[in-house]
Amino acid sequence: MSDQPQVLVGGRWRAADRPTGEFRAEDPTRAEAIGPAFPVSSAADVEAVLIAGIAAAADLVATAPERIADFLERYASAIEGDAETLVALAAAETALPAEPRLRSVELPRASGQLRQAARAVREHSWSDPVIDTASGLRAHRAPLGKPVLVFGPNNFPFAFNAIAGSDFASAIAARNPVIAKAHPSHPATSRRLAELAHAAILAAGLPAAAVQMLYHVDNSLGVRLAGDARLGAIGFTGSRAGGLALKAAADPAGIPIFAEMSSINPVFLLPGALAEDADALAATFFASCTMGSGQFCTNPGIVVVPKDAAGDAFVARATREFAEASPRPLFSRGVQESLARAVQGLTVAGAQVLAGGDVGAGTGYRFRPTLLSVESAAFIDDKGALQAEAFGPVSLLVRVDGDEAFTAVAKAFEGNLTGTLYRAADGSDDVLWASVARHLRERVGRLIANRMPTGVAVSPAMNHGGPFPSTSQAGFTAVGMPSAIHRFTALHSYDNVPDALLPDELRDRNTVGVQRRIDGRWSDADVGAGASTRTHH
Amino acid sequence: MSDQPQVLVGGRWRAADRPTGEFRAEDPTRAEAIGPAFPVSSAADVEAVLIAGIAAAADLVATAPERIADFLERYASAIEGDAETLVALAAAETALPAEPRLRSVELPRASGQLRQAARAVREHSWSDPVIDTASGLRAHRAPLGKPVLVFGPNNFPFAFNAIAGSDFASAIAARNPVIAKAHPSHPATSRRLAELAHAAILAAGLPAAAVQMLYHVDNSLGVRLAGDARLGAIGFTGSRAGGLALKAAADPAGIPIFAEMSSINPVFLLPGALAEDADALAATFFASCTMGSGQFCTNPGIVVVPKDAAGDAFVARATREFAEASPRPLFSRGVQESLARAVQGLTVAGAQVLAGGDVGAGTGYRFRPTLLSVESAAFIDDKGALQAEAFGPVSLLVRVDGDEAFTAVAKAFEGNLTGTLYRAADGSDDVLWASVARHLRERVGRLIANRMPTGVAVSPAMNHGGPFPSTSQAGFTAVGMPSAIHRFTALHSYDNVPDALLPDELRDRNTVGVQRRIDGRWSDADVGAGASTRTHH
Repeated sequence: MSDQPQVLVGGRWRAADRPTGEFRAEDPTRAEAIGPAFPVSSAADVEAVLIAGIAAAADLVATAPERIADFLERYASAIEGDAETLVALAAAETALPAEPRLRSVELPRASGQLRQAARAVREHSWSDPVIDTASGLRAHRAPLGKPVLVFGPNNFPFAFNAIAGSDFASAIAARNPVIAKAHPSHPATSRRLAELAHAAILAAGLPAAAVQMLYHVDNSLGVRLAGDARLGAIGFTGSRAGGLALKAAADPAGIPIFAEMSSINPVFLLPGALAEDADALAATFFASCTMGSGQFCTNPGIVVVPKDAAGDAFVARATREFAEASPRPLFSRGVQESLARAVQGLTVAGAQVLAGGDVGAGTGYRFRPTLLSVESAAFIDDKGALQAEAFGPVSLLVRVDGDEAFTAVAKAFEGNLTGTLYRAADGSDDVLWASVARHLRERVGRLIANRMPTGVAVSPAMNHGGPFPSTSQAGFTAVGMPSAIHRFTALHSYDNVPDALLPDELRDRNTVGVQRRIDGRWSDADVGAGASTRTHH
Repeated sequence: MSDQPQVLVGGRWRAADRPTGEFRAEDPTRAEAIGPAFPVSSAADVEAVLIAGIAAAADLVATAPERIADFLERYASAIEGDAETLVALAAAETALPAEPRLRSVELPRASGQLRQAARAVREHSWSDPVIDTASGLRAHRAPLGKPVLVFGPNNFPFAFNAIAGSDFASAIAARNPVIAKAHPSHPATSRRLAELAHAAILAAGLPAAAVQMLYHVDNSLGVRLAGDARLGAIGFTGSRAGGLALKAAADPAGIPIFAEMSSINPVFLLPGALAEDADALAATFFASCTMGSGQFCTNPGIVVVPKDAAGDAFVARATREFAEASPRPLFSRGVQESLARAVQGLTVAGAQVLAGGDVGAGTGYRFRPTLLSVESAAFIDDKGALQAEAFGPVSLLVRVDGDEAFTAVAKAFEGNLTGTLYRAADGSDDVLWASVARHLRERVGRLIANRMPTGVAVSPAMNHGGPFPSTSQAGFTAVGMPSAIHRFTALHSYDNVPDALLPDELRDRNTVGVQRRIDGRWSDADVGAGASTRTHH
């Protein structure tokens, strides 16, 4: 037991307290355990992180924002400085390619995201100050005063890691401590990140328990933790079943849970766009669907294809691409088994396999890139089963005959993160665009034109969110600064409070340089400066 | 049955479909039924409003915002023009004073709130457009595309009415249809408002079913309705039990519910402030606690008073005021019975009755203004029972000995809408302020200095919300434009979508004149105008 990796609890690394079990990472390409045996934490560890998290929350509320920004920047630099080690660990645990994915795409995205959070902290932009000079009321967004619990997913060991990703950066940017529950499929990567985070916390002079991490808890303890009213909020990225179980625990306790659960990301190939170059579109689609073995929340899981000559050409080329591709490594046995079940479910529901459909030959956790097809009438009739997410390199083609069928398919979708339409450059699809986009728009968080949905830019205008059940509600984004930070804030109004007793952002003199909505207009000005304000009406 | 008032369903007034019962309003001062027998709607009416609401939602998404603003302004004018009738109906059904409360305070507040919503619509200020020129992403807030269900409370027949109040105005401002579930204690007032709303809908050329109203449904049908996934969101103002029951139904269906449930609104009288004028503070407190028979969400239900000479003087004067006051009319038998139970619960938990404590003499639904007291140690030990809301003219004094006890009491509170501190003008309380306010701040939505909490200004900087269980979450306000509108919106991102296919607010040319966050800065400018944007970094 003494060699077991330590958990980060209460501001220090220590042995897990009476762990209920242990687990090891696996090399997915060989299906063999690698690295040390990590502890499955007990209720004792859970209680300890809660108690320390509450104390840290009180301290963080009173911490100068500059220290938070300093921490985020130190941590970003430490991740960049440790890139070789981190990439090697993550590549071994996930089988994701070191280049370009881990080293040149995901790691810079993770460190860049931490830096964007730091900038939002320094600019105070997430606090959205509002000043009403006539009523004496002023309001802004503020820390929750309680710890935020973050559950990381299996598919982004850096950019969505519970100890380094968007939820982590967002929660701590708003001066909330984070209790990270790492994903058990990449514990060594998470441990290394936590070591860097902990060192940066100490160097920045933040409360040591502002960042804590457990590797794993069993499901029932995780659900119990999610319902503990000492939490301020929960961030979750993962499966629908997992998200709904945590939500069912958090909701009755009044704990806001921001769960990003599942999405099939429909792509509509309008006839004009398809006629322009069906072959190139098929190649683009194949690359998007199979990149990272399709293990993306924004994987194009459904493509709506007209039943015309260009549509047939697209299907033929895509089928060939999928059929000729080798089986790809998946993260784990669980992913492989879920994927096999999902593909079977699609066929039972009436989809026909055009290519792939099984694990194929080779070692490790793999699945052949798989393409299925179904008629639009069957898809519309059976919304549920044919909209089940198949997490992996799998996509279902829905063949439509005529414009009305396009629109009818759009109306059949439940909530998704993204919806994509490919339209012709000459505008010939735009009547159909209007009809399809209108229905798709309210069913997705991000509406995309002529790009595949994979690839989520960290942008203030990103929405990595969408209507239930893709997320727990349609009003927030899990990616993009400062918007993602808003999830982990409370709205604080001050009524008749003297200037000297207000937070810096709300005082008459705008010493922090933030834009504030003063009497209805966003402005850099001091209150009472004249030019920037207007008569209250 | 033919004389029974009609329900507003599917864009027209019609008889209730197989009602499950009927009910009448009461004159609270005599405890006698008045007015006609209104229908209790059946599942058939509920299904009809949902079906019509969904169709109206699709139409409203495509409706020009100017029409929504036109409706809101017409409706506001109609309410003002019909003031005499509305005030007479509301006064009869609620026993609230016609003057100044209903005629000069609440009715203008309701119509003014509708006008503020109209202005937010015309200014597009609720849509919060965000433009990131480097990534090609643009985002804003948009309609839900589904109807919003609004449950109105008993205590504001105009300003929180399901068919006229803040939730109503907020939901329709964002182009969502409203299904109003009126409160059964003032059906004739609600009917009159619905007649005005319906006429304004038709005059403005909006879809007729954009506003629908049922008078009443039984509790089990209400809960079933709240869990219907065809809803986009729910607004609720009322009791904690009612709010939690609806939340338990809405949560598993992924329906955001914005429930404002209960609050005891602690008031801390710091020693310096009390020493300045204990007598005047006692009179102010008495007036605030008994105004409108104390039937306010922001009633000062707990006052923290030091055990010193000024504190004793405050208690003596307040006790006298409460003891000499006549019993006040309450809205209904239900309110009276709940209040009697609540006062009994406080005494069982250890509070001592200083004045009042029973219904007193007289007809109708009444309760004597009641003052109770308890020692801080007992309050801290027994958080739950002594923090139960007593909805009516009742307040509990918590006596504290020394600064540490003040802070300890502040730490004992659960989530509330407001928290108030009275501080001395000479700054002598400011050390204690810092210690108490720090803990109170994270437990309340609005922190108030030297004002009683009753009176909720309709201001963009208002927070009429607070941490659970005062509301269902700490991140939203139920009052204040445009902030309250955000509750009933979805976040919509556009990725690589051509300018001509974007919503007006997100196009390069800012034709609607809204301030937009372009590359991190709020600006009126067009995109590409140079001066307003900066390098994306």
